[in-house]
Amino acid sequence: MDWESVFATRASRMKASEIRELLKLLEQPDIISFAGGIPDAKLFPKEAVNAAFAKVLGGEQANAALQYSVSEGYRPLREWIVTRMQAIGIDCTAENVLITSGSQQVLDYAGKLFLSPKDTALVSWPTYLGALGAFNAYEPTYDRLDILANREPTSYVEAAEKAGGGVKFAYCVPEFSNPTGETIPVAAREKILDLAEALDIPVIEDAAYQQLRYDGESVAPILALDIARNGGDIEKTRTLYCGTFSKTLAPGLRVGWVVAAKQVISKMVLIKQASDLHSSTINQMVVAEVAKNTFDEQVATLRQTYGHRRTHMLRAMERHMPKGVSWTKPEGGMFLWVTLPDGMDGADLLAKAIRDHRIAFVPGKAFHADGSGANTLRLSFSCADDQMIDTGIERLGRLLLAELAG
Amino acid sequence: MDWESVFATRASRMKASEIRELLKLLEQPDIISFAGGIPDAKLFPKEAVNAAFAKVLGGEQANAALQYSVSEGYRPLREWIVTRMQAIGIDCTAENVLITSGSQQVLDYAGKLFLSPKDTALVSWPTYLGALGAFNAYEPTYDRLDILANREPTSYVEAAEKAGGGVKFAYCVPEFSNPTGETIPVAAREKILDLAEALDIPVIEDAAYQQLRYDGESVAPILALDIARNGGDIEKTRTLYCGTFSKTLAPGLRVGWVVAAKQVISKMVLIKQASDLHSSTINQMVVAEVAKNTFDEQVATLRQTYGHRRTHMLRAMERHMPKGVSWTKPEGGMFLWVTLPDGMDGADLLAKAIRDHRIAFVPGKAFHADGSGANTLRLSFSCADDQMIDTGIERLGRLLLAELAG
Repeated sequence: MDWESVFATRASRMKASEIRELLKLLEQPDIISFAGGIPDAKLFPKEAVNAAFAKVLGGEQANAALQYSVSEGYRPLREWIVTRMQAIGIDCTAENVLITSGSQQVLDYAGKLFLSPKDTALVSWPTYLGALGAFNAYEPTYDRLDILANREPTSYVEAAEKAGGGVKFAYCVPEFSNPTGETIPVAAREKILDLAEALDIPVIEDAAYQQLRYDGESVAPILALDIARNGGDIEKTRTLYCGTFSKTLAPGLRVGWVVAAKQVISKMVLIKQASDLHSSTINQMVVAEVAKNTFDEQVATLRQTYGHRRTHMLRAMERHMPKGVSWTKPEGGMFLWVTLPDGMDGADLLAKAIRDHRIAFVPGKAFHADGSGANTLRLSFSCADDQMIDTGIERLGRLLLAELAG
Repeated sequence: MDWESVFATRASRMKASEIRELLKLLEQPDIISFAGGIPDAKLFPKEAVNAAFAKVLGGEQANAALQYSVSEGYRPLREWIVTRMQAIGIDCTAENVLITSGSQQVLDYAGKLFLSPKDTALVSWPTYLGALGAFNAYEPTYDRLDILANREPTSYVEAAEKAGGGVKFAYCVPEFSNPTGETIPVAAREKILDLAEALDIPVIEDAAYQQLRYDGESVAPILALDIARNGGDIEKTRTLYCGTFSKTLAPGLRVGWVVAAKQVISKMVLIKQASDLHSSTINQMVVAEVAKNTFDEQVATLRQTYGHRRTHMLRAMERHMPKGVSWTKPEGGMFLWVTLPDGMDGADLLAKAIRDHRIAFVPGKAFHADGSGANTLRLSFSCADDQMIDTGIERLGRLLLAELAG
């Protein structure tokens, strides 16, 4: 049959991302790649995970672990999350928590719940590519959530109306953002809430990297600030906090969560039920077991290892980057964000980088919903050892120097 | 914030199903329930699953098992599925297979890919409740896929236009359907394809129960018939075949699949990537291992046990049902479908059944997209032993006799 004539709706216009194609080019073993944004598999808590699977399947819980379960998620895991949320100022109960298949799924559900075609989502330029992918399925337009610009709330509404819909939510990654590595300071978080209140829209707080802080002071989550504004009552808040075990325990388990007012969670539970019934029962039980036993120890290991790599890469950048190139100094996460002189193009550069210098990175343009950012690129240090960093950043420096000279 | 004003889109209008509420009533231990439609947890291949997790996590695959993986799914599992599909007349390659989080997720993706608000989905009355739930998020209307009625294709188009959209697909459960237990004969499957060709729409073939045949001859899948119509070329077909390991191995692992033309699969891969990146890597590896080692043995056990329960329930029905009550005689699956005399109401009856007779079933109305079917109910035998069936069906007979007399 002629499928193109049948793909009539939103999801049909999604395209494979450039990044995806790019990453396929990087499988040659001699290339030093700073392109991937994934955790280092050598750091996964394999023994703890293995022991937890054996315990769950060897005991009385085995039947329940393999059976259908409730869409809300495994209650002991939700309760463990509650204690962790309370420790960072988010006073909530298990009824405010839904377990999802990674935090990516929360972004999809937010699109499903809030967006109609032509509505506007506020996102930063640049922003997490997976968020744009999740939202794109619901055919929104994007406007720039640019807190420093001090735009009037009415200007967002006017732009949205011009695009044919309304402003439906603001999305951000407040800590060590993918792709920039930057953290939104508390004053800017308050401004996001001011804007969201003025527009009466929800805030999607993507906290995927929150536990991975290597130095500096932790900043209150937007949901915690929102709760404080509302007399301590999470039920009056507008923020959806998205968490995940993918960056701390293991992404292959696909376990994440969302915390919000019960009104939101109850809608998302219905969406969850209709979309995949529930996340894997056994994986939720295993995550609950591993989290209870080794979460803090595991996060401490990650902070030490990734923190060292971050510092090592920043020092290498100081040594090798030519004048005119600038980069972020992240306090956590997995990424540095490099800004090249105007007129340089990260995508053009990548071809030369792979071909002539055997290094790779992600050009920054794809992270910009408006198509800007050609002169930016993302470097990941999460899977790079000292020698890869020393050699790779030196090569990058040589490439950029040659480009600037030429 | 005032959330009701923000829930502006499709998913916001979803309501908790009656069934969900109902099942909460059934937790009293003295109630004999034929309401649930889940596999018997005592029959899960626990040892095989346990051994597979230990093997995957104890070997060289451990890092990969816990890492992010491709949206298409774990290749060895897709290849195993290909061999099984070929054995039932579906000639395909791994590129025609996407692994999903249960077959429920395929139904959600089908809605996302094909439906815009006011479009029409063709479904049988009654139909699987989870399908209606998945499609409802995309705000379609429903028309009746009633092959015996010999309706003109144009009448479907006219009805859809009146509802404000077009006919976008036909959905059915061809084997041992949930809720009726009935199987669509090959001639009717061909008629569904005839209609789909006339309307130029896809067919969603939900094969959740296909392996659970207890007697009778197996019938060619709709996708196999579609391939045969198209000179053996799956790329020319219009059918999406949805499979799952939930009814054969274990639903708590959340592993299912869809087989279709590459044009469909490539779109669904993008939807998968945007919605939850991929299904749990480790669970896919474990399912591949368990399937390879024990699938046939496991299915043989299930057929024997469930088949016995089916037969036992049918015999009990013969003994205890009063005149005027009829029921299906399924060749497989988990369900009988009971039709009461006109004017009786399954929902009213359920209250009495629970309160006065300590038995439970699911009233049939919820399975009807048009609100009909008040005089029907669904009985599940999958988790019922002989004594439960003998006692429970006797009680049901007494209840119905009293109702008919009163």
